Amino acid sequence: MLNNVVLFHLSANKELTEKVAKILNLKIGKVELEHFADGEIMARTLSNVSGKKCYIIQSTAKPATEHIFELLVFIDSLKQNNAKEIIVVMPYYGYARQDRVARKGEPISAKMVAKLYQAVGVDRIITVDLHTSQIQGFFSCPVYEISPNDLFADYLSKLFIKKHVDYHNLVIVSPDHGSSLRARDLCSMFDGASLAVIDKRRPAPNKCEVTNLVGDVKNKICVIIDDIIDTCMTINNATEKLLQCGAKEVYVVATHAVLSSNTFVKDIKEVIVTDTVEKNLDNIVVLSIAPLIASVISDDN
Amino acid sequence: MLNNVVLFHLSANKELTEKVAKILNLKIGKVELEHFADGEIMARTLSNVSGKKCYIIQSTAKPATEHIFELLVFIDSLKQNNAKEIIVVMPYYGYARQDRVARKGEPISAKMVAKLYQAVGVDRIITVDLHTSQIQGFFSCPVYEISPNDLFADYLSKLFIKKHVDYHNLVIVSPDHGSSLRARDLCSMFDGASLAVIDKRRPAPNKCEVTNLVGDVKNKICVIIDDIIDTCMTINNATEKLLQCGAKEVYVVATHAVLSSNTFVKDIKEVIVTDTVEKNLDNIVVLSIAPLIASVISDDN
Amino acid sequence: MLNNVVLFHLSANKELTEKVAKILNLKIGKVELEHFADGEIMARTLSNVSGKKCYIIQSTAKPATEHIFELLVFIDSLKQNNAKEIIVVMPYYGYARQDRVARKGEPISAKMVAKLYQAVGVDRIITVDLHTSQIQGFFSCPVYEISPNDLFADYLSKLFIKKHVDYHNLVIVSPDHGSSLRARDLCSMFDGASLAVIDKRRPAPNKCEVTNLVGDVKNKICVIIDDIIDTCMTINNATEKLLQCGAKEVYVVATHAVLSSNTFVKDIKEVIVTDTVEKNLDNIVVLSIAPLIASVISDDN
Amino acid sequence: MLNNVVLFHLSANKELTEKVAKILNLKIGKVELEHFADGEIMARTLSNVSGKKCYIIQSTAKPATEHIFELLVFIDSLKQNNAKEIIVVMPYYGYARQDRVARKGEPISAKMVAKLYQAVGVDRIITVDLHTSQIQGFFSCPVYEISPNDLFADYLSKLFIKKHVDYHNLVIVSPDHGSSLRARDLCSMFDGASLAVIDKRRPAPNKCEVTNLVGDVKNKICVIIDDIIDTCMTINNATEKLLQCGAKEVYVVATHAVLSSNTFVKDIKEVIVTDTVEKNLDNIVVLSIAPLIASVISDDN
Amino acid sequence: MLNNVVLFHLSANKELTEKVAKILNLKIGKVELEHFADGEIMARTLSNVSGKKCYIIQSTAKPATEHIFELLVFIDSLKQNNAKEIIVVMPYYGYARQDRVARKGEPISAKMVAKLYQAVGVDRIITVDLHTSQIQGFFSCPVYEISPNDLFADYLSKLFIKKHVDYHNLVIVSPDHGSSLRARDLCSMFDGASLAVIDKRRPAPNKCEVTNLVGDVKNKICVIIDDIIDTCMTINNATEKLLQCGAKEVYVVATHAVLSSNTFVKDIKEVIVTDTVEKNLDNIVVLSIAPLIASVISDDN
Amino acid sequence: MLNNVVLFHLSANKELTEKVAKILNLKIGKVELEHFADGEIMARTLSNVSGKKCYIIQSTAKPATEHIFELLVFIDSLKQNNAKEIIVVMPYYGYARQDRVARKGEPISAKMVAKLYQAVGVDRIITVDLHTSQIQGFFSCPVYEISPNDLFADYLSKLFIKKHVDYHNLVIVSPDHGSSLRARDLCSMFDGASLAVIDKRRPAPNKCEVTNLVGDVKNKICVIIDDIIDTCMTINNATEKLLQCGAKEVYVVATHAVLSSNTFVKDIKEVIVTDTVEKNLDNIVVLSIAPLIASVISDDN
Repeated sequence: MLNNVVLFHLSANKELTEKVAKILNLKIGKVELEHFADGEIMARTLSNVSGKKCYIIQSTAKPATEHIFELLVFIDSLKQNNAKEIIVVMPYYGYARQDRVARKGEPISAKMVAKLYQAVGVDRIITVDLHTSQIQGFFSCPVYEISPNDLFADYLSKLFIKKHVDYHNLVIVSPDHGSSLRARDLCSMFDGASLAVIDKRRPAPNKCEVTNLVGDVKNKICVIIDDIIDTCMTINNATEKLLQCGAKEVYVVATHAVLSSNTFVKDIKEVIVTDTVEKNLDNIVVLSIAPLIASVISDDN
Repeated sequence: MLNNVVLFHLSANKELTEKVAKILNLKIGKVELEHFADGEIMARTLSNVSGKKCYIIQSTAKPATEHIFELLVFIDSLKQNNAKEIIVVMPYYGYARQDRVARKGEPISAKMVAKLYQAVGVDRIITVDLHTSQIQGFFSCPVYEISPNDLFADYLSKLFIKKHVDYHNLVIVSPDHGSSLRARDLCSMFDGASLAVIDKRRPAPNKCEVTNLVGDVKNKICVIIDDIIDTCMTINNATEKLLQCGAKEVYVVATHAVLSSNTFVKDIKEVIVTDTVEKNLDNIVVLSIAPLIASVISDDN
Repeated sequence: MLNNVVLFHLSANKELTEKVAKILNLKIGKVELEHFADGEIMARTLSNVSGKKCYIIQSTAKPATEHIFELLVFIDSLKQNNAKEIIVVMPYYGYARQDRVARKGEPISAKMVAKLYQAVGVDRIITVDLHTSQIQGFFSCPVYEISPNDLFADYLSKLFIKKHVDYHNLVIVSPDHGSSLRARDLCSMFDGASLAVIDKRRPAPNKCEVTNLVGDVKNKICVIIDDIIDTCMTINNATEKLLQCGAKEVYVVATHAVLSSNTFVKDIKEVIVTDTVEKNLDNIVVLSIAPLIASVISDDN
Repeated sequence: MLNNVVLFHLSANKELTEKVAKILNLKIGKVELEHFADGEIMARTLSNVSGKKCYIIQSTAKPATEHIFELLVFIDSLKQNNAKEIIVVMPYYGYARQDRVARKGEPISAKMVAKLYQAVGVDRIITVDLHTSQIQGFFSCPVYEISPNDLFADYLSKLFIKKHVDYHNLVIVSPDHGSSLRARDLCSMFDGASLAVIDKRRPAPNKCEVTNLVGDVKNKICVIIDDIIDTCMTINNATEKLLQCGAKEVYVVATHAVLSSNTFVKDIKEVIVTDTVEKNLDNIVVLSIAPLIASVISDDN
Repeated sequence: MLNNVVLFHLSANKELTEKVAKILNLKIGKVELEHFADGEIMARTLSNVSGKKCYIIQSTAKPATEHIFELLVFIDSLKQNNAKEIIVVMPYYGYARQDRVARKGEPISAKMVAKLYQAVGVDRIITVDLHTSQIQGFFSCPVYEISPNDLFADYLSKLFIKKHVDYHNLVIVSPDHGSSLRARDLCSMFDGASLAVIDKRRPAPNKCEVTNLVGDVKNKICVIIDDIIDTCMTINNATEKLLQCGAKEVYVVATHAVLSSNTFVKDIKEVIVTDTVEKNLDNIVVLSIAPLIASVISDDN
Repeated sequence: MLNNVVLFHLSANKELTEKVAKILNLKIGKVELEHFADGEIMARTLSNVSGKKCYIIQSTAKPATEHIFELLVFIDSLKQNNAKEIIVVMPYYGYARQDRVARKGEPISAKMVAKLYQAVGVDRIITVDLHTSQIQGFFSCPVYEISPNDLFADYLSKLFIKKHVDYHNLVIVSPDHGSSLRARDLCSMFDGASLAVIDKRRPAPNKCEVTNLVGDVKNKICVIIDDIIDTCMTINNATEKLLQCGAKEVYVVATHAVLSSNTFVKDIKEVIVTDTVEKNLDNIVVLSIAPLIASVISDDN
């Protein structure tokens, strides 16, 4: 059935798409993509898509707005040319952090962009480790969320074997309240490991933010888990707090290497991420999600 | 402007509606509501609603499905009779716990019911303490979420003054990972208080669930906070865990007293809830959200 | 083409579904269906439905609201899991009697539920003997209505042959104005039979309801035809009126045995219904519509 | 509030609109309406409608399609010019007779035109005596149906007083099964009157249609009631059947004088219609519905 | 794949449809089409269309409104009968000239009819030489526009070879500003040809319209190109202006022969049109677009 | 009525908004607007907009995509906060040039962005001099287009009086076929002026583009009119062609100074634009459209 499938990338995930195409033995569709001087974007299919099932792999990380627009314009091109089904594989879902009204007056931009994708005619979304899984419900069409936890667990367990780590000395740390479910899930994969949460709080409007560690990390190997590393601040502060509280070593795993800035404190033993966001970095370990995506596409067809 | 407003209740929140009406000096619209022998429901307005702004106060707790259907049928009645705007005040949002695909094959019923309300023509939702705030994004219309935290903080601070509690001896406890933000927010209101999270985990598919306390409660006054008390099991287990870990006293605050069963362990000092769900109970303290709802309606008009 | 079809039932029509599956040699999909203590319902597919054409057989008779909700939740599950097409076979269409605004303020609930089914994503409806055929137009998607008249005519003609009934002695009776087209259609199948209508009327608001028989039944074999038998009152009153007017024998045929109560007057010779609503009854004849449904599914594929 | 209302007519109901305008003391909006040589229609408002509530009075009788198109084009003009609300008063609802799939392959045109009106942006419908009331449910917006029965009862009772008619000698006749509810409702207004139905049936596909009278009319004053008189055939045949069965006198009341042909048999004593369809006829009595429409508009504002 | 295709015509393009069917070796679906005395239209499919891809060929030229309604009613018939996809081939798009608000109060009828087609369920449009190509954007579904320019160029070049015309003596003329792109495109196909535009202008509201020729036609062979010939006035005036300015010969090519009137000035050497609108005319040359339509259908399947 | 109006600007038109606010004596609403390091944008209202009519003035010129996104996010903020009506004043409509499928595979981005604005909930659009007026029909909501021609005519006539220009020596020039209607309209305002069009054409795919002047400009004062000046190339080439053909002087008027580059040939006497796009330029004349926008807002309320 894959002979009716066309795989596309735009500017965000060329390498990932090539890996997926190679696994599935699929050809990649041809696209003409232009960014004009006034900031307008044009994307059109050069491949015939009439009656075809089209997968577009495009993360909407930095530059978020332009990546989103490439996608919107290109979906319109596919629609105009009579594509049968348009499935967006969005390994990193941009604007996910604005997922509820936290302060009066705020938009819910994670929902707003869901409206945009659906307005132009997307039929289905495949994504990886949403900031909050409830974003699935922001769509009327099906959303399939891939978890990277097996990838991480696999990598870490090999590492810990090599390093002779007893899991009772392992603590999985959520760097804030938002990732505690992620930490709990990873923790379940290491029998004996315990959990800690870093709690940031402002005791009163005019007081300073206070960071507390909930849980015990003394002499423990800590693995901080988060979904997104953007400015590194959360990760760096968490690392320092853990070391202050007596942690022995600190590792970091995170799904999405948005990395607006890339200045990890050197106390971190190792940073492990996936390739949902394409980066050329030599100080971090990158695990590829291509096999996971290929497997979902293959099951579909 | 309130002279263009009609306030309605169906079968779920008669008392709360009367309180709101009294505060705002509003009349309550007349409804004919019938449940037939075959399970069909009929609700029609007996008040003239043409050109009126209609607020319907209806929680969708037990019996959830029937409360939802009363609402759907009645909204249709208002629509057919040319109501200008239909605002549902849903103090308790039923089906909220099914807010994402946790196991393969699951529906997202919290989103599905949002589709139903919007399909029949609701213009806006006012609700209290959603299970997850992201449910706001399940709607295309505006959703306003009222927080009961000030109510709780106010009640507790009076209690603690009476009991001479030093806030440094206070721990706010989230009974699972889902309420940790709620606990953090309440915690911020008591300068010096600390936080704990109860972590439930299944170390492997064929192993027993393990409950760990993350944080320190020894000799502390504990306040467990949750959004919903349904079967009491979560709260009772958490209380026992806290006492095992040396807690001095355990209080429970929760917004929604769904209470399919009502068998609190007697070790709990006090259970404090709101009246989002109407119950006649003498062993718990009920704080009314009527003033909060009245204030939102008043600001609207 | 039936190899791309999955057949499902929920709680309303297990036996009927098994009959249809047997005729078409189809497997029945697996569903996990739960009713929780607070009245919430969960239904999820355990069968893989990605790319499949799914037929769900579910009447929405007593308990109407819960049967509707099972359907809505399960359709959402199929949608989330990428079903290609969702066809609801609803042998009995609940809420059909509320099909127009008869008294000021009434909802049109038969239309309202049509909105719900479409809001969650049903693609097509197959149903049997709608209370009024115009309900077809309440949907934007196609609705196919199966008539049970051939089933009834077939059964009755065999019976009348056995009993040597001359059709000129046969009167088909509509028990109110709503079923007169049904009576006319059945009548056309018995050459020589005549027609009668029972007319209920309130001569003035403060006067009693008066029942008149329009037509002549003296010494005739009467067959009352109706779509729904719910409380039996209509049928019982009609039978008594016919016997008062000199009818020799009274039979009753009806499509949907909702039967909130089941207390037929013993003057009725025989009650003949179909299995659109599943009941265990030994005092009535049940004709199965399974072959008619199987035939429609077969023609589709 | 009527100072925010603009009343419009197109080509179908100029006189009726003027009557309504006079009762409500409203000005009639100016429209440029053109039918071009190629059959295209152009209608644009010459009155400023920005922020106004616009009522358009337009029946969609002969020429049905053109009257519908005038309406669609003009609604678009109002929308483009920022009308606040568009209410169509459609005294006669064209295409109403195609309200269900009677033969395989048929469209449901009564629903289809409802889609058209809503697609271009109508907010509400006010209509008179729908062919079947279920057409209300073909719309998602509110539909208000005016009954002309009080008009008819009022006229007939004055006539019968003059003629000393005892209501026990009065029979209200439905000329087919479709109008039996109409007959029943009119009948209820004359204490002592009885009911009859004319039953047309084809006993077998290759047999002639047979007309039977169900009920007794011997020496009675008969009033045939129907919604539409189009080709006069139904009414003429019914009249002849009644006279054959011994009726003393036959009157006809009908709401909509579509009258594609106008050749009543002279045996009819009097034909009474309303002005939902504008005609210049001197052999029939026309009762105006203008006061009923004016009253609905007045109640709205 | 064409074995899943059914081709239909209604009353506008019988001959064209037969030509297309012949080229593609397709059968033409059976339709029952009726125009009733009151102007209502009924169209139903007599062919089974369940699961079929249906192409309907129907121009919406004179009588425009009725041709549109035939289409709307018939699309509803196909939808009710479960057609898989409905593609309208509309060689001439009626109401195209009302494509923007030119005078205050005007509807945008070209958009309004696009709403109608989409409201009843059309999936795709194939059309020929739109009055303005932007009408493509009035639809949410794909619109494919066929250009007749190759047909015209082919015919003209054969003619000019026969007549030994040097292209440097050829001027392509746009008869107003609306067709200047059409003229430019045709001009590009004749190397050496030049361009002229006829400019009509009203110098002031109370002054006469003035016609100027922009460009030079002295002793040249002129080919006027337009999309629609309706009343012939534009073409006739243009011809006279060209001859006044010294043109040697004038030819006219136009795509759509709407021809509400058919009175060409005899100074025109030859009028060349296509068969998008079916006419029986002996004074003009008709080129068939059937091969172009057949080719698009063939590419689709 | 203006007391219910709030006027907003985002980052594109601060000065223009202040001018409009001053004319109408309106306050400008407060907005928090942030562009994050990863390219995400956040905009939220700090003013209370519940029940208010909100006008947002925002052109979507360079950087087009970001200006569009500011608008989309901010509209969502207004919607979430219960704004009554959201009217976007978009003096320059970005992506307007992609208004039809010119080459196979192209999107219709001008329509696509219309879908986006409507998906997030815009109620109405006010814009200035659309690239093609048909873009009005890309919206389902009303679009009001302001023409700047009176502004230009007024400025030019004052200039020509000062310079003693006889209008018979004046030629209005369209620099390509797309602006010929604009040129015609401006031309009508100068009695005696004539018209010229610059025709660019590629005689065959492998030949060079050829530029011809259609019309006569010898010793004439030329005014080139266009809607957008982006890279200046069109305007510069046109100017050179006119001077080659003997034009005496060349002026340029254009509505939208997008100006990705700003390098006019110095042969142009004067460049006159409006302030739809905010620029700081000292070599061109800028006429403000603020009074025109203020007048439309004032008429609305």
